[in-house]
Amino acid sequence: MDARNRIEQALETAVNRAAGSEAPPKLSEALRHAIFPGGARVRPRLCLAVAKACGDDTPDASNAAAAACEFLHCASLVHDDLPAFDDAEIRRGKPSVHRAFGEPIAVLAGDALIVLAFETLARGAACAPHRLPALIMIVSRAVGMPSGITAGQAWESEPVADLQVYQRAKTGALFVGAAMAGAAAAGADPDDWRLLGERLGEAYQVADDVRDAIADTEEMGKPAGQDSAHDRPNAVARLGLPGAVGRLEGLVAGAIAAIPSCPGEDDLRALVVAEAQRLTPKSLAQSAA
Amino acid sequence: MDARNRIEQALETAVNRAAGSEAPPKLSEALRHAIFPGGARVRPRLCLAVAKACGDDTPDASNAAAAACEFLHCASLVHDDLPAFDDAEIRRGKPSVHRAFGEPIAVLAGDALIVLAFETLARGAACAPHRLPALIMIVSRAVGMPSGITAGQAWESEPVADLQVYQRAKTGALFVGAAMAGAAAAGADPDDWRLLGERLGEAYQVADDVRDAIADTEEMGKPAGQDSAHDRPNAVARLGLPGAVGRLEGLVAGAIAAIPSCPGEDDLRALVVAEAQRLTPKSLAQSAA
Repeated sequence: MDARNRIEQALETAVNRAAGSEAPPKLSEALRHAIFPGGARVRPRLCLAVAKACGDDTPDASNAAAAACEFLHCASLVHDDLPAFDDAEIRRGKPSVHRAFGEPIAVLAGDALIVLAFETLARGAACAPHRLPALIMIVSRAVGMPSGITAGQAWESEPVADLQVYQRAKTGALFVGAAMAGAAAAGADPDDWRLLGERLGEAYQVADDVRDAIADTEEMGKPAGQDSAHDRPNAVARLGLPGAVGRLEGLVAGAIAAIPSCPGEDDLRALVVAEAQRLTPKSLAQSAA
Repeated sequence: MDARNRIEQALETAVNRAAGSEAPPKLSEALRHAIFPGGARVRPRLCLAVAKACGDDTPDASNAAAAACEFLHCASLVHDDLPAFDDAEIRRGKPSVHRAFGEPIAVLAGDALIVLAFETLARGAACAPHRLPALIMIVSRAVGMPSGITAGQAWESEPVADLQVYQRAKTGALFVGAAMAGAAAAGADPDDWRLLGERLGEAYQVADDVRDAIADTEEMGKPAGQDSAHDRPNAVARLGLPGAVGRLEGLVAGAIAAIPSCPGEDDLRALVVAEAQRLTPKSLAQSAA
């Protein structure tokens, strides 16, 4: 089965269990709305690609790690879209969860997805329980305090924030988590994969800043111009547009260089290159052509 | 060290690690505000009491399980107090987290506390990693979908909800989780402790409904009359006040009867009796005297 199918199946299985017939219907529907149909699934694909590069000897554990990363990513989107944060009306081209189901259900959907991530890890690691402690620690660090996603979002409420610290926490941490969880799920040393996650995460954030500044809402599937509208620290404001684009190119090259020598390195390199192309706004690609 | 000290120390250690000097200051302060000073810490005390009754051979794991239950309880309070839910101004006699720190930080505080619960379990079970899968599953079921706290809160958004299903999820599930996690942390069979958790949880919920109906805000440390103001299903509306008080007494007796025969059963019985006294509103106790 290819990576995309493995990811969708792992997500389906977990969501079906959480949102069964005995569950409250609106929250069940909100969980499905938040997860399906997906975006690029870039974090779980990174997770599985690293697991594969490390031998992928327990696919259940790798699938669970990939699904957990996606659940946590989606949870952060649902909460970040709330009126108290970005007040976003659309996400992935459809109404945000709070627009579709109301604010209480959106708060609870994020909460339930965080819990589901950890539950999914515990179930998936049943065949390799000695890998579970590392998986839980890696994933917790990626999303919790002091330097995971929640910390990143919280820096937006501070009068002064270091751009790099903010972006590493808000975006980079879960890329690091996805890469390291893929290694841990396959029984490899997660630390060998930290640098790849860091560089990919920063590349993704810079690309998002560039897209937010120049792309249109339709192309992004979410409102453009949010960083400037919310006066959030971002790479375009700091480096200018050409500087940010140059930084993005350097980070992609750095990510490729950070791939450890391993049997799956060609596949990983192809994944990084494809992501870099996907993340470049069409208008930039056209003007460069 | 007595149970209260073990709990406070476990909470302190985990919060200090999450809210260190590199963390965003407001969210760090909000985590402390949400956790300290505590309420009755009834869930972690139940967890430790069960662990003790089961031999408590790995106190680090029991302390972690107790702290995890309290973090999850506090996370649910922080989110339940949000404007989209109860819009509560006070909690434990001081401003609710969103009143003190704003809504974004309150949403993130709940999220970070959920993550911290799982991280704390993984750290605490380092000396007994084979117990971690059961601990994660027990705790996930207590707070996630389809029948944990998030499900319970979500039933409030449904046009029709079964009172028992709603209350079991919103309140009972974490009592069940606390009792079962205490057993799992000590290497005992968690299922032997489910019934005690169920009965205590229901007793606690009925007591809360009674207090909400007749106690005053000062005595409760949070606004009274919320069930009626929000038209929420509750035991007093369903059974009348005398019926609800009778139900509470029956549940306390049932909880005592559900304690398995074990070396620590006297201590557990004393805990249940003391809780029942604490939960009876002063006006009821006076009128009965």
